[in-house]
Amino acid sequence: KELSLTPAEELFDRAKMEDLIKRRFFYDQSFAIYGGITGQFDFGPMGCALKSNMIQLWRKFFILQEQMLEVDCSILTPEPVLKASGHVERFADLMTKDVKTGECFRLDHLIKAHLEKIKSEKNAKPELKAEIEDILIKLDGMNADEMSALMKRFDMKSPVSGNELTPPIEFNLMFNTQIGPSGLVKGFLRPETAQGIFVNFKRLLEFNQGRLPFAAAQIGNSFRNEISPRSGLLRVREFTMCEIEHFCDSKDHPKFESVKDIQMLLYSADSQEQGKPAQIMSIGDAVSQGIVNNESLGYFMARINLYMLAIGIDPKKLRFRQHMGNEMAHYACDCWDAECLTSYGWVECVGCADRSAYDLTQHSKATGIRLAAEKKLPAPKQVEVVEAVANKAAIGKEFKKDAKVINEALASLDTAALEELQSKMETDGEYILATSAGEFKLNPNLVSVRKSQKTIHVEEIIPSVIEPSFGIGRILYSVLEHNFKMREGDEQRTYFSLPASVAPMKCAVLPLSGNSEFTPFVRELSQDLTSVDVSHKVDDSSGSIGRRYARTDELGVPYAITVDFDTMKEPHTVTLRERDSMGQVRLPLANVSLIVRDLANNKISWSDVEEKYPKFEQQENAKGAAA
Amino acid sequence: KELSLTPAEELFDRAKMEDLIKRRFFYDQSFAIYGGITGQFDFGPMGCALKSNMIQLWRKFFILQEQMLEVDCSILTPEPVLKASGHVERFADLMTKDVKTGECFRLDHLIKAHLEKIKSEKNAKPELKAEIEDILIKLDGMNADEMSALMKRFDMKSPVSGNELTPPIEFNLMFNTQIGPSGLVKGFLRPETAQGIFVNFKRLLEFNQGRLPFAAAQIGNSFRNEISPRSGLLRVREFTMCEIEHFCDSKDHPKFESVKDIQMLLYSADSQEQGKPAQIMSIGDAVSQGIVNNESLGYFMARINLYMLAIGIDPKKLRFRQHMGNEMAHYACDCWDAECLTSYGWVECVGCADRSAYDLTQHSKATGIRLAAEKKLPAPKQVEVVEAVANKAAIGKEFKKDAKVINEALASLDTAALEELQSKMETDGEYILATSAGEFKLNPNLVSVRKSQKTIHVEEIIPSVIEPSFGIGRILYSVLEHNFKMREGDEQRTYFSLPASVAPMKCAVLPLSGNSEFTPFVRELSQDLTSVDVSHKVDDSSGSIGRRYARTDELGVPYAITVDFDTMKEPHTVTLRERDSMGQVRLPLANVSLIVRDLANNKISWSDVEEKYPKFEQQENAKGAAA
Repeated sequence: KELSLTPAEELFDRAKMEDLIKRRFFYDQSFAIYGGITGQFDFGPMGCALKSNMIQLWRKFFILQEQMLEVDCSILTPEPVLKASGHVERFADLMTKDVKTGECFRLDHLIKAHLEKIKSEKNAKPELKAEIEDILIKLDGMNADEMSALMKRFDMKSPVSGNELTPPIEFNLMFNTQIGPSGLVKGFLRPETAQGIFVNFKRLLEFNQGRLPFAAAQIGNSFRNEISPRSGLLRVREFTMCEIEHFCDSKDHPKFESVKDIQMLLYSADSQEQGKPAQIMSIGDAVSQGIVNNESLGYFMARINLYMLAIGIDPKKLRFRQHMGNEMAHYACDCWDAECLTSYGWVECVGCADRSAYDLTQHSKATGIRLAAEKKLPAPKQVEVVEAVANKAAIGKEFKKDAKVINEALASLDTAALEELQSKMETDGEYILATSAGEFKLNPNLVSVRKSQKTIHVEEIIPSVIEPSFGIGRILYSVLEHNFKMREGDEQRTYFSLPASVAPMKCAVLPLSGNSEFTPFVRELSQDLTSVDVSHKVDDSSGSIGRRYARTDELGVPYAITVDFDTMKEPHTVTLRERDSMGQVRLPLANVSLIVRDLANNKISWSDVEEKYPKFEQQENAKGAAA
Repeated sequence: KELSLTPAEELFDRAKMEDLIKRRFFYDQSFAIYGGITGQFDFGPMGCALKSNMIQLWRKFFILQEQMLEVDCSILTPEPVLKASGHVERFADLMTKDVKTGECFRLDHLIKAHLEKIKSEKNAKPELKAEIEDILIKLDGMNADEMSALMKRFDMKSPVSGNELTPPIEFNLMFNTQIGPSGLVKGFLRPETAQGIFVNFKRLLEFNQGRLPFAAAQIGNSFRNEISPRSGLLRVREFTMCEIEHFCDSKDHPKFESVKDIQMLLYSADSQEQGKPAQIMSIGDAVSQGIVNNESLGYFMARINLYMLAIGIDPKKLRFRQHMGNEMAHYACDCWDAECLTSYGWVECVGCADRSAYDLTQHSKATGIRLAAEKKLPAPKQVEVVEAVANKAAIGKEFKKDAKVINEALASLDTAALEELQSKMETDGEYILATSAGEFKLNPNLVSVRKSQKTIHVEEIIPSVIEPSFGIGRILYSVLEHNFKMREGDEQRTYFSLPASVAPMKCAVLPLSGNSEFTPFVRELSQDLTSVDVSHKVDDSSGSIGRRYARTDELGVPYAITVDFDTMKEPHTVTLRERDSMGQVRLPLANVSLIVRDLANNKISWSDVEEKYPKFEQQENAKGAAA
């Protein structure tokens, strides 16, 4: 049912696209000459440039335009930080091992595959099918005992060897290592970049002169030791993230007005639960109807939407899916994933969560350092202050070297403890104080409780956090799928219709043939393009011009300049070709670099260029080109 | 003696600079609220922007201008790769441990500190002093036994506890972990980015259509588990590198002509050995006199020199020091380090080594995959081809299932083995063939040797590699030191005179006061600057304008636009201030964004602006500003 807004299945040949990605080295398995490692990929020149352009655009779109504070924090993280964040305890997947071979399987994947196989068997009864369908929906939220019960009930064995399997094992997904030569400091490779921002909260708040709201952002690699990586770039062990933490006291957003009319495909938790389809609506309506929790969350969802379209995601294949109650962390108050439809189904590419004050609170507790901001009150407020008044001389005399610990413990008692102290002193005439150095019996001569009125102008608050978190590899894969095209009537000729802003190179420079008279013009063009920062590739290899156009199309290069025999005549002219339409115009050599720059920066459009310059009519031999 | 070309000591107050770096969060210790980890740093908004600008300029300067192939490879590296590269065996430092507390010391640092202390004692004899000086020079090249002897001879104890120390221990500097859930696949965090390029050589060569020379480049993090990190950013456990591998068959360089007149401070191995000073000379002379081994190496040294100056390195504090014989890896044929003079002495910031064909050869050996290029011969060549002619039918009949192994072993025999086979067959009538499945006795009926003439047009070569390798953190630190300035007559007022191209932000926008009538103009300016991609900061905090200028100076922001009461009059004008001269001009609000953009991109200079627009004469109160 959720698929009712899904576009009609288009012809998409994943094997063909993967062949192109491999052949033109967009990316490929790491260490392949050593047999390779699953879940790790190296980006070649084209993939690396595409990724780097996506990141540069992200930086411009979010950090520059929103004046965020960018940070670049350590990857190696000592254990206490990730204990506080909950990762040491909870960042785990369940797995099971073949008892004989030791082969490991991710448990939910194994159960899913096993049940789907049973369901698809010819003689499967309708009741069993329905039951399995119900299990599959609930599988994500199941714990180890429930999964173990399923394993027994359906008699699951290793799908590889048929051997018995162990009971479920919790496998923590963080890579661990030791920091320093002693081997005693345990550390992990960070599983997300966010914690680096949280532990720097105080410095960032100070940099922002103590004021809320502000957003910090980080671009960098994170690591997860996946049990069984698969699906290419979609599930890997090492990946680049772009994360934002927007710290705020109010969840209204000053710029929400500017995005409120943006239409998005929203798939709310309610719709999912009630089996209704996702619906297109404006983010303004979604917030005012309470479907999206607040303006800040809605603002970022709209900005994510705009960014995804700018880099070439197909708007028909982008939706925002709300987390259901059982998916969401207990502290989160709302969470929406931007999902892209690919041949693997809907893929989570960007998470956008309202994490409330959870992380800062956890790190405050773990370190004893208050990660809070001061907020000016609308009006000064009278408050009752309760404090312990220690008779330091008497305490010093009685407890000697322990006096310091006792005084510190008294100073840090909270209101409830002070109330108890006062009542104990009144009823029992003594109070037992617990300290790090043990317990001490105090009497009214040593300590009393004072209550007073105080006027305060600020209150201390732990800000809430809205966290948009982008998985660059998954987005990149989706962009490639959404832009993989075949020339009509020639299935062998495939290309990527990437927007110029993210295309690996903006332009190709092609001499018509190996004739050496073309060389000075090619060199001049290359220098001109370099001087206006247009990335380009000179392809002076042999092969017909059509074949070389086909090659630049495969690389997703949007524009190609051809130097031919007419170029040598004065006034010097060249041909400029656009990739998607294969349209060509003839224009002066002297103008072409700036025109390509403006095209690449979206300052002018291809139709502007076609209007201004004469069409160049020579046909490309599309059929021959693929040879 | 080496310091004779060192500039006269300037007043530099490291503590003052470090205070500024910390206070304005350029960078600071990672995880400080958890007590921190030595050798790890987090870059705050200003440090991160500076670093990111340095890297973007690097990408433009090297990758774009030289059309290099950028890659982005995995950090987690399986053991066999780093065994082949020699890192598992040799990438280690010597350390010693306190036998009681277990505290670890890096051995060369410990010996150096101990000997320097002896040398500086009042009653140290001149002979002893001279001997120690000699030891200190040789220390870098000493092995474990020699260092152990020194420890005994000078009776070295733990400088912290006075306890006995263990004999030298080899400590491998790579962080290790396990990849995958089985715990059986050992991996390391890469200690350099270079190996990712080497293992992708075949793909990159193919991407370059099989042609040499080409260069690949990678920007990314590497990790070294330093025994005792110190000196701030200079010795850390996690750092960003920019590395280039230039693969070539000839070491001439087509663009060498364009750099040959560049003057550089060169400190050759000869000069170091003979106690002569470094000398300024052109790179052209250095190559033609054989001081620098070849043009390709010289070309990159000149380009490194240009890049370093572009980002703000002081030319008087930059030299290229050649590795001496005992420093250089056995396979390297020449190596020069670009060193920056800082308050820590001369610091290696960029290595530029000719690594010959070492790495590709090692990975070829380890994998059995030939990492070689084909080079067209100037003229076709007749060569004698020697090959085994197997009688496959007879072998199959005699050896059954082993036939395949035997045929493969025969096909892979090299010329020497084939000569031996032939001679054995002639003399003994049999030949014992060693295979992976054991030895087999063959007779002339089963195999013979055929010699024939063949015409070849290409030869297979393993290319040489020139490797410029940039340590971004060290360069960034040097840039900060070289640009740390104090206002004349006001030591409290410090600033960074960073070039606009790398400055964290290009511009500040300052309303003269909190008057709300300024707000629309400030907002308009911020939008204008954003639309032309000029990074900027609005500082509308309270504080005098002088004080806020001082703050932007501390951040290294080169330009500041001030909105004041005259701005509100038509035609709207603003003040533009330049950081280093503190000069100010008055110009139309409508023009200022594009002018700042052109200033930031070095399209126009500040003196151009001063010529065109009237000077704004209001004095900054420098003294008051620091308050």
